[in-house]
Amino acid sequence: MFDIVIVGTGISGAILAERFAQDKKVLLIERRQNIGGNCYDEIDGNGILIHKYGPHLFHTDDAEIWQYLSKFTEWQTYQHKVLAMIDGQAVPIPFNFNTLYKVFPKNLAERLEIALLKNFEYGKKIPILELKNSFDADLQFLADFVYEKIFLHYTEKQWNLTPDKIDGAVTARVPVSISRDDRYFSDKFQAVPKRGYTAMIQKIISQKNIKLMLNTDFREIATLRDGKIYLFDSEFNGKIIYTGMLDELFNYKFGALEYRSVDMKFETVDAENFQAAATVNYPNNYEFTRITEFKHIHPAKSARTTILKEYPQNYYIGKNEPYYPIFTDAAKFAHEKYLNELKNFPQIKAVGRLAEYRYFDMDDAVKRALEIYAELKN
Amino acid sequence: MFDIVIVGTGISGAILAERFAQDKKVLLIERRQNIGGNCYDEIDGNGILIHKYGPHLFHTDDAEIWQYLSKFTEWQTYQHKVLAMIDGQAVPIPFNFNTLYKVFPKNLAERLEIALLKNFEYGKKIPILELKNSFDADLQFLADFVYEKIFLHYTEKQWNLTPDKIDGAVTARVPVSISRDDRYFSDKFQAVPKRGYTAMIQKIISQKNIKLMLNTDFREIATLRDGKIYLFDSEFNGKIIYTGMLDELFNYKFGALEYRSVDMKFETVDAENFQAAATVNYPNNYEFTRITEFKHIHPAKSARTTILKEYPQNYYIGKNEPYYPIFTDAAKFAHEKYLNELKNFPQIKAVGRLAEYRYFDMDDAVKRALEIYAELKN
Repeated sequence: MFDIVIVGTGISGAILAERFAQDKKVLLIERRQNIGGNCYDEIDGNGILIHKYGPHLFHTDDAEIWQYLSKFTEWQTYQHKVLAMIDGQAVPIPFNFNTLYKVFPKNLAERLEIALLKNFEYGKKIPILELKNSFDADLQFLADFVYEKIFLHYTEKQWNLTPDKIDGAVTARVPVSISRDDRYFSDKFQAVPKRGYTAMIQKIISQKNIKLMLNTDFREIATLRDGKIYLFDSEFNGKIIYTGMLDELFNYKFGALEYRSVDMKFETVDAENFQAAATVNYPNNYEFTRITEFKHIHPAKSARTTILKEYPQNYYIGKNEPYYPIFTDAAKFAHEKYLNELKNFPQIKAVGRLAEYRYFDMDDAVKRALEIYAELKN
Repeated sequence: MFDIVIVGTGISGAILAERFAQDKKVLLIERRQNIGGNCYDEIDGNGILIHKYGPHLFHTDDAEIWQYLSKFTEWQTYQHKVLAMIDGQAVPIPFNFNTLYKVFPKNLAERLEIALLKNFEYGKKIPILELKNSFDADLQFLADFVYEKIFLHYTEKQWNLTPDKIDGAVTARVPVSISRDDRYFSDKFQAVPKRGYTAMIQKIISQKNIKLMLNTDFREIATLRDGKIYLFDSEFNGKIIYTGMLDELFNYKFGALEYRSVDMKFETVDAENFQAAATVNYPNNYEFTRITEFKHIHPAKSARTTILKEYPQNYYIGKNEPYYPIFTDAAKFAHEKYLNELKNFPQIKAVGRLAEYRYFDMDDAVKRALEIYAELKN
């Protein structure tokens, strides 16, 4: 009846379903009531397209990935800009010369500009560690400023860490941009699907050979036993692409994989606009990390505007959503054990952000799915 | 694995799924990529909620049905009004005193008003046959006018009939309303689901015990043989609610059920509004029967407006949608035979507009589904 079962309708599952459906019968199952995984978006009561699981901004340098997705959507060109609320002002990040002149008084800004231009090539992004290691006291001052005002307290909130627990290696990578480029990404292709990610993914999986089953947990229709898989109570001999969490698949027998979650709080503001950019970070104030106003991403005519405040949370299995892996040694070790356990079920291939227990940008998820297809198709 | 299989996610299938899911495992399957059957609606590129299969206006006098649906949706109050384009003017129908004064010169209108009020009780709806049978020449004239200008050519287009083939019994029921009530329906409850029918039906079927399978034809997962039903290649002993067409289920072995179809042509008009009411009928001009402007039904702020022109068509199996049954003797006879054939499969219950080969208003479909549940639940 089915040649392949694919679990999950995020980017990974949807693309693998589409590829395999060219010549195979695919059963695509999804635990939620809607497709799209965490890319899921919908038009809200204000007539605005919102991203239910936080802002998703597509960007890639890979023309093949861009062309592949372009078969399934038109694009809204959009180059993401992020502001950070520093000393009561919203200023561009990554920190660049525009930020410099907004944050500091004119004479200090000029002095820092001269120091930066003397030491670094125009157009580059310089990790603050390099500034810190220079012999110029002004640059050391700037590195400390960026670390303290933009990075440190944001990271504390995001990961619920005390400053001493924050990884120096990560800190070192926070950049200062030797340019006036305010954009958050520098990829060649930057856009959002014109009618949203859900519509794009709907198009991807709208194939005759794909039977889509919603509101269905894999373990409700399948059983794993003695290296065999039973689907609808009969032995199943085809392939399974599993994009869910491995700890869940194996009943947490080696412990839970750790994640950071976010409480996504959408609010309606009774005004045409709320802020000057799609996303404004609040490193140093409030309990939320950032506010996203979706009208900037998907233009909409509405007398009101919808904003999203993100409150980082602990992750509790079954209670909220797993967003960011926390790579503790215990978690990495558990994931290894699950991958090992999976070898007892050679029909199953674990693919994607959750199953591989890592962070994927969307273009990486597309690329990975296409690679896995190339590997498995024969 | 499943206690009951329900085929189709229109009103009938969705409500039966919801009812059975209280204590049974339901597999709900849908041939299309989306739920909702012909109630399916979506927000289009102009930000306007449109009904893809023509305007659906909910109206009922039954408080129980209203309360049942109210568990799954908020309502947008809306009392449907229809205008008909007569002699170059859009005038209210059903024909009433407002229409009278719009269509006729003042003195004639007054004379007709007096004649109507002398002969009929205020507030009643009088079939034109009664006017025609009166001894008053003015009322006979009015009956002919309404028949010719509002009914006859509309019906010709709608059913592709010559005037001599148009059923006298139906004609006789065309009313003149002895009132100034312009509304198309007079039910106590008249509304549309605030966020649309699809959202309402989504809510209805969002139950833990309902597994929803989209893009799936019943015959792709089930086989009927020797009075038995095989689901996913195993014998299935539960109930099946089938809301599709019976001729299709039985491979047209007794011939095809006849239907009239409609080509639904949506257009964007680059203006805030197009017409004065949700629906304007064009009995005597053009090839479409009517134009619906959805902004009147679901208010939306948009610089553009979306209209729908309905072009009646012959129905071709697999090519377009079956909308209105054509009750020829051959079709009625074939449907009887299919119902008889169904007796060989006592697990299957045929429910709803398509399976029962009749026209249902939405409230009747709700009522029928609730009745069928009461009948089958034990």
